[in-house]
Order: sequence, then C-alpha cells, then structure tokens
Amino acid sequence: MTYCVAVKLNAGMVFLSDSRTNAGLDQISTFRKMIVYEKPGDRFMCLLSAGNLSISQSVREILQVEQLTDPDGGEPITIWNAKSMFDAARVLGSAVRHVYERDGDALQRAGVDFNASMIFGGQVRGEGMRLFQVYSAGNFIEATAETPFFQIGESKYGKPVLDRVIAPETPLDEAAKCVLVSMDSTLKSNLSVGLPLDLAVYEANMLQSDKITCIDNDNPYFKMLHKTWGQKLREVFDEIEQPTWDDAHTDVPLLTEHPRNPPLKKITNSSEKLI
Amino acid sequence: MTYCVAVKLNAGMVFLSDSRTNAGLDQISTFRKMIVYEKPGDRFMCLLSAGNLSISQSVREILQVEQLTDPDGGEPITIWNAKSMFDAARVLGSAVRHVYERDGDALQRAGVDFNASMIFGGQVRGEGMRLFQVYSAGNFIEATAETPFFQIGESKYGKPVLDRVIAPETPLDEAAKCVLVSMDSTLKSNLSVGLPLDLAVYEANMLQSDKITCIDNDNPYFKMLHKTWGQKLREVFDEIEQPTWDDAHTDVPLLTEHPRNPPLKKITNSSEKLI
Repeated sequence: MTYCVAVKLNAGMVFLSDSRTNAGLDQISTFRKMIVYEKPGDRFMCLLSAGNLSISQSVREILQVEQLTDPDGGEPITIWNAKSMFDAARVLGSAVRHVYERDGDALQRAGVDFNASMIFGGQVRGEGMRLFQVYSAGNFIEATAETPFFQIGESKYGKPVLDRVIAPETPLDEAAKCVLVSMDSTLKSNLSVGLPLDLAVYEANMLQSDKITCIDNDNPYFKMLHKTWGQKLREVFDEIEQPTWDDAHTDVPLLTEHPRNPPLKKITNSSEKLI
Repeated sequence: MTYCVAVKLNAGMVFLSDSRTNAGLDQISTFRKMIVYEKPGDRFMCLLSAGNLSISQSVREILQVEQLTDPDGGEPITIWNAKSMFDAARVLGSAVRHVYERDGDALQRAGVDFNASMIFGGQVRGEGMRLFQVYSAGNFIEATAETPFFQIGESKYGKPVLDRVIAPETPLDEAAKCVLVSMDSTLKSNLSVGLPLDLAVYEANMLQSDKITCIDNDNPYFKMLHKTWGQKLREVFDEIEQPTWDDAHTDVPLLTEHPRNPPLKKITNSSEKLI
C-alpha cells in the first residue's frame, strides 16, 4: 500500500509521500514514490504515485519521452515544453495509456488489475499552480478551492485532520505540519505505510523549490510532531467530560433520550416458539 | 455503508452503531443496526450488523428461532439457553449460514455479494464477558486483551482514536466517550454513515443494562463532544510548532535531511532525446 497527499493553497503547494511497497505481507520494500521535474524559472512539477509499482515505474520512465501531437502543428508537446499544467497532465495520462497498451492484456491474463493512481501538480510559467489526480485510465480531475487536496493509497486514516485544517488560506508551513500529522495517523493504523517520507514544499510563483526533504525516524521535527500530537490528543480527550446518564443529577450535558426516537429493539426473551 | 464499534473492557462493554443504510447514493434510509437480547439476571447480548440489509434483517429474524443440536443429547441450543457466549455465537453463525442457503445462489445470480458482518458480544451467567466478530461465512473471531475492540463497516476514519485510547483498563464512561469521538470522525468524513446512533453500555456481571440510548443531533452530550473535540483538536494542532527548514537559525526541531538518505530524484530537464 501507499499513502500520498498533496495540497494546493494560495501560498503554494505541499506534497508528501511514504515509501513502503508490498506484494503480500511477506514482501515489503522501500521505494520512493515522489519525483520532481524542475526547470528553474520555467516550471516545477511534482508526481506522486500509488498502485502497482511496475506500472508507476514504467509511467515515470515513459513520461520523460512521452509526447502529444500539437493540434496547431507546432512542436510535439512534452512535460518540458507544455504551456500549461493541464497539457502536462494530458502527457502524463498519455504515458499511463502507453503502459496500458504494453502491459494491460498480459496483466489481465495474470489476474492482476491495471491499478495505478497518481497526483501531479505544480506550476508552469505564465499560469497559476494546478493540482491533478490521474487515474489508471489516464483521465484526471483537478483540485479546486472547495477541494484543495488529493490523497491516493491508504487515505482514510489521515483524512479527518485534513478535513478539519486545510483551506486555500492555510499557510504553507501549517499545511506541511497538517500533512505530516495526517501521515502520522496513517502510519499508526496501517502497517503497509512506512517511513521514510518525502516532503516537497513549493512556494507560489517560484518555479523551483529547494524545500524538499526525506524524513526518517531520526528527523527531529517529525519525532517531535509524532510525540507531541499523540500526547496532546490524549490530553484533549481526557479534558472532555465523560458522559453521564439520564438519572444522574448534574449540570453537565447528558446522554439523554430524545422523545421522538423510538426505543431500541430489546428482546427480553424468545417470544416465538422454537421450531 | 455503516459504522459499528464494540469494546470489551475489564469494567464492561460498550456498543455503538450508526443508522444509515444506502443502496447507491440516491437511496438513503435509516435502519437501526443494534439489537439487544436480554434475560435479566441470566444473559445480556448485543448484536451489531453491517453489510447487505436484507441479509442482516433475515439473520436477526432467524436468530430468534435458530437452534443447534446439543452433542450431549440435551435440549437444542439457542441464544436463550446457550451456556456460553461462544455457543451463542455458534448459533448466530448457524443463522447466517441458513440465510446463505436460502438466498446465496439467487444473490450470486443477481451479481450481489453475500456480504454481512456482525459484532456480537455480551455475557451469560457463569462465565465472563465475551466479544465476537462474525463473518459472512458464519465463522467468527473473539476479542482478546491485546485487541479489545472490533469495528465493522466504515472503520478506518475512526480507528486512530481507538488505537490511542482503548485498553482493557479503560473505564466504561471513558470508552463510551472514545467510541463517540471515533463515530464523530467517521460522520465528518463519510456521508454514508449517519445519525441517529445507538449506544449501549454494559457493566460487567450485571446481566442486564438500562444504559441504552439513541443519540441524535439534539443530544446534549454528543453536541458538546462534537463541538469541543473539533475545537480542541484544532487548538492542539495550532500549538504544535510549524516546521522550519535547514537554513533557518533556530532552536526548534528542524526538518533536516539525514545523511544516510539518498536525495530525492529531481529531474532538472529531459536528458534523453525525444523519440
């Protein structure tokens, strides 16, 4: 499994990926799932991938030489000359389809799904930042202000904190902290997601980034965050009052039955004759 | 979808279920997923169900008349006379198999999985409390001190807080609070889980319970918990320091690269000739 998340904010973008892959539980390896394409001053693009590793590695390889015909008769479009992130995402979708043409039938015969999902985001000079989620059919969707983040892989454990924190106005460092908390919850609950992590933070309109780092068990910030979040979560939990029941005479909020709710079905004995 | 959770503690047991069912996104209804079987002073049992509603309703119906042959030649074993929760769980498994015999083939022809999962726990006079998870094949597993809770349905969003809080020593009211927080996270992230909730709290060796309540939007405790947990979580998140980067001169923990990590693959331009 895998967990990758990317966020698009007014201030920039944040990308985070784990590095565990597994084929069954007894074959666990470490593969980096993030790759950055950068031509400083012209374009910054970051690709995160989940799913079948042979597919995503092939896509990454092909992506570098993939090209689309320009409808206006110009140079073929590649990720290096695409005039928009939308066109770059189309090139990526096309690379996925090439891998499908090559491997799809054989995978199907072997009973293996053509399973690949990717997050692809960044900025090309001349337009704003854009963030896409690309599916295994090569089609894609784009993040908007209402849904400013995408997750792929094991996304559920880490979603509540993103839902609570992330908005377009969120500052970059706060978003970096948030995706790391999201990853921390996922690491805690799912063995198939593992360290080290790759984190890339991109500031809007810089068209390059040096805030790219690999985070392992020894990373002082992640260690602090893991410990503090766990402790404080527990403190907050302890601070919330325990429930008290209807017949308790207290001023605290009660667990009380609302008159409109029909009572739970409680069967007090077998009323029907046994066969 | 559904979310149900049950916890076995030294002090007793806690059961919680939502009540949303859906067949597709455009057919959403409310069905209670908890049922209590109680013979005060003799046995208390609580059943939570997820999966295909027609299957779980049939199982509940059949369970009341289901019986197993006693290998010692005594009375047939039912949930009302079983001498142990293990035997009662066997009766439940047998009820599931009866529904499979009746509906399995027809469901398969219609392309519908025989999908049912249940949590079944309680206490029969003469032995301790026991908690089981029953699968659609009628087989089951039992909770132990190392894994004192089971979840069925949409379990992932609400698992991190259970992992952090629940242990056999957890007091009953704290566990009730914890499953409600777990449900709150699930409600926030998944539309297919919805109010009202059914909560049952059972104190060890009481062999009955009146702490059973239906919780809806107007429940004062759940309203307080929902609001406080969201607010405090946000406060805790804000209290954690933001990450700072290598070149910052500060005393706070840094996001810093460990020397043993190979740098991320950053492709600065297409080095290969386009085809």
